[in-house]
Amino acid sequence: MKISAIRVTPIAIRDPALLNAAGVHEPFGLRSIIEVEGANGLVGLGETYGDAALLSLLTRCQHGLAGGSAFDLHRLWQQVQRHAAQAMAQTTAHGEMELAPGSLSSHLASSAYSAFEVAFLDLQARTLGIPLVDLLGGKVRDKVAYSAYLFYKWNAAVDPEYAPDPYGEALNPAQIVAQAQSMIAQYGFESIKLKAGVMDPMQEADAILALKAAFPGRPLRIDPNGNWSLATSLKVADRLQGSLEYYEDPTPTLEGMAQVHRASGMPLATNMVVTNWSELRRAVQIDAVQILLSDHHYWGGLRATQALAKTCEAFGLGLSMHSNSHLGISLMAMTHLAASVQHLSYACDTHYPWQSDEVLVGGKLPIVGGCVHLTDKPGLGVELDPHKLAELHDAFKSCRIRTRNDVAQMQRYRPDWRQIKPRF
Amino acid sequence: MKISAIRVTPIAIRDPALLNAAGVHEPFGLRSIIEVEGANGLVGLGETYGDAALLSLLTRCQHGLAGGSAFDLHRLWQQVQRHAAQAMAQTTAHGEMELAPGSLSSHLASSAYSAFEVAFLDLQARTLGIPLVDLLGGKVRDKVAYSAYLFYKWNAAVDPEYAPDPYGEALNPAQIVAQAQSMIAQYGFESIKLKAGVMDPMQEADAILALKAAFPGRPLRIDPNGNWSLATSLKVADRLQGSLEYYEDPTPTLEGMAQVHRASGMPLATNMVVTNWSELRRAVQIDAVQILLSDHHYWGGLRATQALAKTCEAFGLGLSMHSNSHLGISLMAMTHLAASVQHLSYACDTHYPWQSDEVLVGGKLPIVGGCVHLTDKPGLGVELDPHKLAELHDAFKSCRIRTRNDVAQMQRYRPDWRQIKPRF
Repeated sequence: MKISAIRVTPIAIRDPALLNAAGVHEPFGLRSIIEVEGANGLVGLGETYGDAALLSLLTRCQHGLAGGSAFDLHRLWQQVQRHAAQAMAQTTAHGEMELAPGSLSSHLASSAYSAFEVAFLDLQARTLGIPLVDLLGGKVRDKVAYSAYLFYKWNAAVDPEYAPDPYGEALNPAQIVAQAQSMIAQYGFESIKLKAGVMDPMQEADAILALKAAFPGRPLRIDPNGNWSLATSLKVADRLQGSLEYYEDPTPTLEGMAQVHRASGMPLATNMVVTNWSELRRAVQIDAVQILLSDHHYWGGLRATQALAKTCEAFGLGLSMHSNSHLGISLMAMTHLAASVQHLSYACDTHYPWQSDEVLVGGKLPIVGGCVHLTDKPGLGVELDPHKLAELHDAFKSCRIRTRNDVAQMQRYRPDWRQIKPRF
Repeated sequence: MKISAIRVTPIAIRDPALLNAAGVHEPFGLRSIIEVEGANGLVGLGETYGDAALLSLLTRCQHGLAGGSAFDLHRLWQQVQRHAAQAMAQTTAHGEMELAPGSLSSHLASSAYSAFEVAFLDLQARTLGIPLVDLLGGKVRDKVAYSAYLFYKWNAAVDPEYAPDPYGEALNPAQIVAQAQSMIAQYGFESIKLKAGVMDPMQEADAILALKAAFPGRPLRIDPNGNWSLATSLKVADRLQGSLEYYEDPTPTLEGMAQVHRASGMPLATNMVVTNWSELRRAVQIDAVQILLSDHHYWGGLRATQALAKTCEAFGLGLSMHSNSHLGISLMAMTHLAASVQHLSYACDTHYPWQSDEVLVGGKLPIVGGCVHLTDKPGLGVELDPHKLAELHDAFKSCRIRTRNDVAQMQRYRPDWRQIKPRF
């Protein structure tokens, strides 16, 4: 299937004042929407980060890719690599955000490739009239489980730039439990993840214990984004022994994670210290982590993530899935991928409940019983709404943000705020 | 695409009196030909080993697979696993041939899956009207290079069961060079592999040096199938320093290979000590080998071999491709796979020039300039000739062999022959 045109459209989507190790989410998150149009008039869709460096690379790539075949993923990789090399040579600094590995300059090429790869595969599947998952070897499961993704957060009243959200403030264990109750009532999640690294670590541990009491038997995870020292990580581990499904990125560096695992015996998960194949190789050598949180957005696409799953299985690593703020195209790409991978046996992360915007016909996708269900529709099974896309592109144009910076956003409210790692 | 029928047909193909570490090839090699017929009347093809244990498993599987979708590779895997478990439970002994990992009982399930997977993918691609390589991400290259695969061998006159072959006897370096000249004149191979482990090791090393003199600059490999002790391996390594592209399976066991590598510094290749994912994990831990000779026939199919390639790349291992005696369906499956894998940067092994039989319309496939060229035809791009298939199935029925046994074959001519490892 010959590609007749490629469109890359940056959009800005509303985001609440979610707190994390770096600071606080800005009122808008940036995403790039990819459309790959075939000579048959069908359009494959992709979605990825929208930060300036990646957006620039995506835009560089788009024209050269027209005229090629939607089946030729090697040509895609070669072109993306060539443009990425040029972009790197011409740029001296990138906005990087460690919490969002897709924004790392070292991941630019694989992130850009991933975005196009999903759209190419979607166009392939639409052309063939089959669900995308069938190109990935077919479904292991008909629905994919996601976890409730809890955040410490401010009320939108902190700043008129934030849109109102239904969850309100969450700054203590009782409010975190209330947030979980509200989110689970709406979406039915069976697993719970708490984004930590924000408040006093023992208060955060108490939040997990409060969740354990409120939702007995439900798998729980805590993720302070590497914001704890080794001593703090071990102190929290001691408090939470027997209460966690896995312990996500308590402390920075592969070596630090290896030490926490050896000392605590807890299974450690990461999306921060293993974000590419060479880090995976090193992690295996020192048994630094036991569960990898994959993310097709920066691991090189759906096929590469399938290969990653095979490698994790071979090397005895568990596999789950990481998420940054995203809309429904990403959600469906994650869902088709997760549905194809037997070895992915944990509920996946998703920020999706935090996003009120959507670019799809029909608006937000349903999450029922904590799961996204696959359909028999061709490709990703979703359609782009051009009016909504245009609206969110206008939001991008009028918004001041071009590269995510949660530190600077926090400094608006706390001028003495600094990026410190680990903070606790 | 719903599968309406599956046919598994065992065949026997003529093979010359090729010598190896175990003994001598029997006058017939066994293969299984798989036909997966879709409700649309199109037929996907597969080819694999034909030894009794695998053939029995393939036959067990065939009926249950009809009615499913050709896109549902997970259902295929589940069914093959279930039947394999039943087969293993009911069987006390298997004929195993270490030189042919596809015959190992531990590989039965993945070997059976592989055979069907290729046929499923072929049916998918034929249904979609695209070459199979397009389902694998598209072509990195239009043609795939193979190496001349030289054997010490007897003249067919040794036994009337052997068919005449054009190469005649090869029992010394001069005859090996003559065999290479003849094979390269016909097929244009640019790389040369010598199957060793047969004669005195230093004579075999001399054969490599004679090939080096006769074909200056051409990559050379020697493969004694683990038939040399550590001391012999190092003595040969010493003689061949600077003359080998890689040194294949000189000695048994991962630990033995690691020792040869540490002591000689030569890059070691294997298809014997790394034949599955857990061996790969161990090999990486001790840096036992530097080049993996993959084989989709027992690594779990085309997609699994692509994942294997990604893993090898990540862990710093080179990648080439192993072969046992085979016909054109296997050759084209190997070629489509190899064409899709950037990381597969060596000429692949193939026994194909040694086979005079073929089951394909048009007979033997061309090898030109040492390469097999891809075409734009759907699927594997080859068609089964039902008359030839029937003839070779008749050969299977009338032939005495049901499980390959090169040791027993050698004992016909040398009653005192024993399987010894390592022999030298």
